[in-house]
Amino acid sequence: MIDDLMGYQKKLERALRSVVRDALVDIAENGLPGEHHFYITFHTRAPGVEISNVLLAQYPDEMTIVLQHQFWGLEIYDDSFTVTLSFNRKSERLVVPFAAMAAFLDPSVNFGLQFEGGKAANADPGEGVAAIAEAVEFPARPDGASDCGPSDGTGEIVALDSFRKK
Amino acid sequence: MIDDLMGYQKKLERALRSVVRDALVDIAENGLPGEHHFYITFHTRAPGVEISNVLLAQYPDEMTIVLQHQFWGLEIYDDSFTVTLSFNRKSERLVVPFAAMAAFLDPSVNFGLQFEGGKAANADPGEGVAAIAEAVEFPARPDGASDCGPSDGTGEIVALDSFRKK
Repeated sequence: MIDDLMGYQKKLERALRSVVRDALVDIAENGLPGEHHFYITFHTRAPGVEISNVLLAQYPDEMTIVLQHQFWGLEIYDDSFTVTLSFNRKSERLVVPFAAMAAFLDPSVNFGLQFEGGKAANADPGEGVAAIAEAVEFPARPDGASDCGPSDGTGEIVALDSFRKK
Repeated sequence: MIDDLMGYQKKLERALRSVVRDALVDIAENGLPGEHHFYITFHTRAPGVEISNVLLAQYPDEMTIVLQHQFWGLEIYDDSFTVTLSFNRKSERLVVPFAAMAAFLDPSVNFGLQFEGGKAANADPGEGVAAIAEAVEFPARPDGASDCGPSDGTGEIVALDSFRKK
């Protein structure tokens, strides 16, 4: 197999990250339609990430935030977004470059994307995303969690691995 | 399953088409690196396509062009590209909107993308891409066809179907 001198994997990864950017632009302008809500996992030590030292100590590798009912001041830039969330009843402003994202999930339609790259060189491996997601404060769902959960098996999570040469 | 009010499939499709645009911009600026070359299949009756009536009669549904040794004047715009190719020793200038693309393949690394949408409403179904590709004129490969062929089984073709909800 000849080397990929065209850099297709990088092009694909960049394109897929732009899907998340598009979605965030939509909800920044129009709010979340219907039952849609986003889980965004990012590498907390990736270049350009801005979070408090308290959060960094709590999530030294990855962190998953939920954009559903309680988020404020979502702003989208070319290479990053910023949003204010509530952690233990304290508001924090986060800056997340799109290149730092590890995963995106909209459980309402089970649409997900997983990304490679963006990790800090010295990131601790092995921290579970699910555990981090639990720790994020968000209110009870009015329609019952079972309608929103990612476990109905009808959707699909797309990992960049599925594009890679075997 | 709740409706996809976010339009993820459209966002994905647009993002994947931008990968082809990125690749074309690269080769317009720097030429084709190494053994890379492109097969691009497009719907000949899609909005914005410009080809001669002779070609349209020959390829009333889909047409595959090869960008390898014999192409000239490749120019990339936001929504389309234009290129001059030789058909039966006659030069023709084509305009192809990215939205009209049905497929992209770089056989050197078996990187492929397949798209939905972009078809004309009255397009004839069932015209084979492989047969059309054969009809495109390009010179013998100096390194032997077996090195370039898409049949070594180590790559992967990505269809947008693989993103769809099952």
